[in-house]
Amino acid sequence: MTAQTDTPPARKPRGRLFFANPGPTNIPDSVLLACAHNSVDFNDDDFFALYADCVAGLKRVLKTRQEVFLYTASGHGAWEASLVNLFSPGDRLLMLETGYFSEGWAQMARDLGLAVQTVAADWRRGVEMAAVRAALAADRAHAIKGVCAVHNETSTGLMLPVEEVRAALDETGHPALLLADTISSLASFDFRMDEWRVDVAVGGSQKGLMLPTGFSFTAVSEKAMAAHREARLPRHYFNWTNMLGRRHRSFVGTVPIALFYGLKESLRLIEEEGLDQVFARHARLARAVRACVQRWSGNDGPRLFCTNPARCSDSVTTVLMPPGHDAEAVRRTALQRFNVSTGGGLGRLGGQVFRIGHLGDLNEPMVIGTLGAVEMALRLNGVPHAPGGVEAALGSLTDSARG
Amino acid sequence: MTAQTDTPPARKPRGRLFFANPGPTNIPDSVLLACAHNSVDFNDDDFFALYADCVAGLKRVLKTRQEVFLYTASGHGAWEASLVNLFSPGDRLLMLETGYFSEGWAQMARDLGLAVQTVAADWRRGVEMAAVRAALAADRAHAIKGVCAVHNETSTGLMLPVEEVRAALDETGHPALLLADTISSLASFDFRMDEWRVDVAVGGSQKGLMLPTGFSFTAVSEKAMAAHREARLPRHYFNWTNMLGRRHRSFVGTVPIALFYGLKESLRLIEEEGLDQVFARHARLARAVRACVQRWSGNDGPRLFCTNPARCSDSVTTVLMPPGHDAEAVRRTALQRFNVSTGGGLGRLGGQVFRIGHLGDLNEPMVIGTLGAVEMALRLNGVPHAPGGVEAALGSLTDSARG
Amino acid sequence: MTAQTDTPPARKPRGRLFFANPGPTNIPDSVLLACAHNSVDFNDDDFFALYADCVAGLKRVLKTRQEVFLYTASGHGAWEASLVNLFSPGDRLLMLETGYFSEGWAQMARDLGLAVQTVAADWRRGVEMAAVRAALAADRAHAIKGVCAVHNETSTGLMLPVEEVRAALDETGHPALLLADTISSLASFDFRMDEWRVDVAVGGSQKGLMLPTGFSFTAVSEKAMAAHREARLPRHYFNWTNMLGRRHRSFVGTVPIALFYGLKESLRLIEEEGLDQVFARHARLARAVRACVQRWSGNDGPRLFCTNPARCSDSVTTVLMPPGHDAEAVRRTALQRFNVSTGGGLGRLGGQVFRIGHLGDLNEPMVIGTLGAVEMALRLNGVPHAPGGVEAALGSLTDSARG
Amino acid sequence: MTAQTDTPPARKPRGRLFFANPGPTNIPDSVLLACAHNSVDFNDDDFFALYADCVAGLKRVLKTRQEVFLYTASGHGAWEASLVNLFSPGDRLLMLETGYFSEGWAQMARDLGLAVQTVAADWRRGVEMAAVRAALAADRAHAIKGVCAVHNETSTGLMLPVEEVRAALDETGHPALLLADTISSLASFDFRMDEWRVDVAVGGSQKGLMLPTGFSFTAVSEKAMAAHREARLPRHYFNWTNMLGRRHRSFVGTVPIALFYGLKESLRLIEEEGLDQVFARHARLARAVRACVQRWSGNDGPRLFCTNPARCSDSVTTVLMPPGHDAEAVRRTALQRFNVSTGGGLGRLGGQVFRIGHLGDLNEPMVIGTLGAVEMALRLNGVPHAPGGVEAALGSLTDSARG
Repeated sequence: MTAQTDTPPARKPRGRLFFANPGPTNIPDSVLLACAHNSVDFNDDDFFALYADCVAGLKRVLKTRQEVFLYTASGHGAWEASLVNLFSPGDRLLMLETGYFSEGWAQMARDLGLAVQTVAADWRRGVEMAAVRAALAADRAHAIKGVCAVHNETSTGLMLPVEEVRAALDETGHPALLLADTISSLASFDFRMDEWRVDVAVGGSQKGLMLPTGFSFTAVSEKAMAAHREARLPRHYFNWTNMLGRRHRSFVGTVPIALFYGLKESLRLIEEEGLDQVFARHARLARAVRACVQRWSGNDGPRLFCTNPARCSDSVTTVLMPPGHDAEAVRRTALQRFNVSTGGGLGRLGGQVFRIGHLGDLNEPMVIGTLGAVEMALRLNGVPHAPGGVEAALGSLTDSARG
Repeated sequence: MTAQTDTPPARKPRGRLFFANPGPTNIPDSVLLACAHNSVDFNDDDFFALYADCVAGLKRVLKTRQEVFLYTASGHGAWEASLVNLFSPGDRLLMLETGYFSEGWAQMARDLGLAVQTVAADWRRGVEMAAVRAALAADRAHAIKGVCAVHNETSTGLMLPVEEVRAALDETGHPALLLADTISSLASFDFRMDEWRVDVAVGGSQKGLMLPTGFSFTAVSEKAMAAHREARLPRHYFNWTNMLGRRHRSFVGTVPIALFYGLKESLRLIEEEGLDQVFARHARLARAVRACVQRWSGNDGPRLFCTNPARCSDSVTTVLMPPGHDAEAVRRTALQRFNVSTGGGLGRLGGQVFRIGHLGDLNEPMVIGTLGAVEMALRLNGVPHAPGGVEAALGSLTDSARG
Repeated sequence: MTAQTDTPPARKPRGRLFFANPGPTNIPDSVLLACAHNSVDFNDDDFFALYADCVAGLKRVLKTRQEVFLYTASGHGAWEASLVNLFSPGDRLLMLETGYFSEGWAQMARDLGLAVQTVAADWRRGVEMAAVRAALAADRAHAIKGVCAVHNETSTGLMLPVEEVRAALDETGHPALLLADTISSLASFDFRMDEWRVDVAVGGSQKGLMLPTGFSFTAVSEKAMAAHREARLPRHYFNWTNMLGRRHRSFVGTVPIALFYGLKESLRLIEEEGLDQVFARHARLARAVRACVQRWSGNDGPRLFCTNPARCSDSVTTVLMPPGHDAEAVRRTALQRFNVSTGGGLGRLGGQVFRIGHLGDLNEPMVIGTLGAVEMALRLNGVPHAPGGVEAALGSLTDSARG
Repeated sequence: MTAQTDTPPARKPRGRLFFANPGPTNIPDSVLLACAHNSVDFNDDDFFALYADCVAGLKRVLKTRQEVFLYTASGHGAWEASLVNLFSPGDRLLMLETGYFSEGWAQMARDLGLAVQTVAADWRRGVEMAAVRAALAADRAHAIKGVCAVHNETSTGLMLPVEEVRAALDETGHPALLLADTISSLASFDFRMDEWRVDVAVGGSQKGLMLPTGFSFTAVSEKAMAAHREARLPRHYFNWTNMLGRRHRSFVGTVPIALFYGLKESLRLIEEEGLDQVFARHARLARAVRACVQRWSGNDGPRLFCTNPARCSDSVTTVLMPPGHDAEAVRRTALQRFNVSTGGGLGRLGGQVFRIGHLGDLNEPMVIGTLGAVEMALRLNGVPHAPGGVEAALGSLTDSARG
């Protein structure tokens, strides 16, 4: 078979950009405009009241009553905060392999002077809980100080059940701290900081919270705070102790005020819909996307990267191209002809997969329009696929609506 | 058959509203934000320079070099301007029947003291040009002072070839003024004020120009200006003579400044894409919508209201429901479950049709998402229809992309 | 004395434009952003609920429980609505002379076929109520069908006590309708539609309501509605009877939806502050402006155009230049050097006066900054003036704050 | 003397907030709206082209041709970047004492494991260059690896001539790296990275660049890049080497896209005005503020904190209260009565000083309005002061305009 490649016209596509890239995400107009707020004194009482409301709302989304520290930083900054505040040079972490982002977090830990032990995993199936338990049980000396779990791996489209990691720690009686990266799961599917006894939850503004990139945060358990007081990695910008002495109990330096006007509005939207309804919507839209991709796959079409149904993510679907077909060509056609932005393959998956983000401010016609554009991009690039993908998504969504 | 009706949940749908209502239309973000301009003195040179640029651009879109008068008013205000400036009490107009809007314009004329003669038409086929010629030829005394043609009838989804009306006037040697309502056609499909010797073209901000409702305008030929000087209907707010003495040559009273910041941006977008490309895009998207509806129609499904392929509009498609099925139920499901707003039936078509607007800031995934939501709404309301409508649209769009 | 003229540099001034032009007015950021709303179906229930809230709020500001009709139009459109809906060809109006705008309304009435009788007035002192009473008393045949009063004359900076006009009608037992133009008074100082038995109140979006230009309105008494049913001037776009049959009871044609999102916010701001506090703020700022101008006047400086303290407007101050000095030069310096936009002289006052608007979204530092820029512009143009104008304003405002 | 304290009313002040707080700063409307941009793929070519333009513009403002690294972080993050990338545990820095922020940077260095030697200074006069030279000359072993200079100390309102620090290094033949914090000077008064051979310039988005808080950056000389390659402090989020391998040569993790749309607009504004004109405007406005405060000071009034005219900052003026009078009371009155936000005293200066920011998107009436509000706040709080402060500012600005 000769691969055929579409050459989109040079002119810009028109109409609204469909942003089906899993990060950052769609920002509702009302949130975007709320962020367009002129400067105010972040130490003024009016702003502080807004700020305190926002943090309270953020805790409801995290399902925690514990401390939350915020940073002017992207998600990687919150990762760094989770490490420098808790550990000392040479401490060992257990990283549960999930994909590109677990590798990144591990590399960061090493760069900061920590030792990293990895529980390896098939990226398409996700880590085996038995392997996690085994690694913990084997660590009789409790050299492992923290277990790092990426709740949703944005590169592969697999989620990792953090509550089962908690269970593994409990079953093995291991005292390590449990760190969860919720960057691409929070406010998209269920996360329960306190119920699951997560010690540090890492999150950012730019995914399920539907905000621009600009702040990230860590929720921190009392156990983690105790560890913090003993930890000796050098730190200042991300230092929780510094923050405790400030009025906002967060932020070394200037507070990114504009984002809190936006956060208030995004929390209002989330709570007006209801967190459970938000999760149900993400689940419903994710099922439709998967139904579409499964239809396309046929004998030799693009298929779900995730081969473990229990782990398929409700916020992002990674699609594996058939051999010999370039995911980037499909993405380019979708973007340049149809104004639909999908995510590319990260790291070793580059060119082999594309990713459809379905999180945040999203509804049925946005998903259908995205899938329609991708289906046309497959045709225009001569990528083999079974027909009827969008039809299958419509069927799935109709069933959901009837449900 | 028992009609089944969907009961959408009470909660608000999420994600972006798909505005597939033929009026007003989608506003690009950049236009919306450009309109969010604080107050300036509309007599200041800087604003006047912007204003003059806008009027020049508007003339390029109208394909005219003649005078354009603008009003703080909706399209109905520009209709009124076209009548009170040109005619005297008792003058006769020839109204070409197109649907709800030709009836409205006729009623306005009668209210203002004019006599209206109508060339009747089948709303689903459009007026016969032979009947137009016959009416003009029969008027040997030239009692008819103006011929009114709605270029695109937003209620039925039929366009009317204004250039053929011009030809009818020429062939019969009739001196009546030619008035064209371009409200839902301008900047969506081709209109040529000067080439077609249109005497008055009526347009508004809120359709193909992709702006909020707020100003409307009439482009006016020299012949019409001459008629204006003789016309005796009372007028002030819309009086062209008043306007000629003002710096902006338009607007009695305050100028709606904000919209001109928006118009500059919308003209930039239109000209960056190119007017011919704008028309090609509307044609391409309209074909896809019609392909979808034609597939749905099968034996007893919803069908195109327009039965005359040469007249089917490229900016709006009116869909006729099968007997016994309520268009409003379908619209309600689409809006309340899927956040897709379609237009309802106007006047005598109420409940029998719904309308899909496909004009302005629109692209392929927006159309596919809209059609998908409508197809699901048909299913959920038990409206018979052949399957595969969205598939047909995808096929049409893929063909267009290959073209 | 040789007039000296400042030549501002060609480059644009920086920082925020101070818009001290009495029309349109400053728009609060939150109102401007609320107006940046994408299109929705104006017949949808959600929008209609917002609309109904807005109209209810507007009635609270007008202090009326009667019908309010809205138009996509500027204030002149609402003027036209007030005339074509109430009167028949040849009907006589009594226009109370106030300045440029009473002349404009009178000319409109004549253009529409009405007869206009004027109660002449010294523009600097305002109409004498005795003269109004005399004119009414003299009209024993009750040929006068309506009395037109401009509540605040934006060109001269004088207000006209509408309640005294009501009293004059009552005292003379004259049945004429009372029409009040509240365009530049509403929501800036007190107006009481029902208590004063005003029959038609004309208002617009772009002054005290702090919105962009885009809609105007008339509140209408039952007595006026009765007159409307008998009135025979031709009308359609502004016809109240047409409107009564529509869902919004307003607007022939498309509703300017975006402005209602803004109106909701501006009403929220007004009611959060409290209407009485809004009036107190305007009075306080107006006193400061007048204190400044009175200080400047000295022997031969610029002075208050208004020579009747009881009539000086709380929303605009007109400043009369000393002979031989051009108001436009001062305005140009203020705008081009200091980014402060003031209003120019209208009609016969052109060049002789400039106008400082102090209405809408305004506070002390905005007034002080404006006055400071004007004082510097006087100096730079060699306009004689006593020093200490801004000091006087500061003194006035400090006294107000102490009060 | 009994201190009198104003009790502002509980209600919110109206009109626009005057943000005369030195950080963050006023954001022009056009910049704020440009930032309200929906999400795009930061790896898409269109965005990358915008980004590259922005970085090129940023280099023109910094007057450098060298590498610039950007971070999703506030200014403190860029401080941290400047330290972790250049130094190894135990390295010594020479911190030139300026005030609150030099203390903060020093503390950060210590927290990260560096040794800090301070050149002490009188905060009101600024560091003596002789002392700097002496410290460098005394370090014969070249133990000092970096000299840290805060170009503009936002807490005291003093600037520090970085070019003289460069000269001190040259004169003493000291090879230490020169680090300059330009956070509150850049784009307000002159800074010349390359001409002054600054090795690392630290800046942020939220001051002279007139953007929301959200990104900060370091410009880095080749000499500093060489030092970076040897430096051994642990780092990841701020690691330049990581960044060099990424397409944007900056940002570990997600790029804060929205701010680049804003930066493009703020650079356009800066370059339309011209950098030299920007500096001249800041100088002119600063002189007026100082003229006002000097007038107030009289015998026992508030006075300039800066007692060294050569060092008084053009971007912020710190005002020292007379003994027994609380700066916070004045600030509260200004904010709560007049909607003017000034900065409070930081650290040990708390309560003793307030700060007037005069940087960014600022003009004459904004300064006059601010000073007027402060003058009224002094009166209302019974703070002794000579009259005529605002008059003095007007005089200064008039002279500047005449110049």
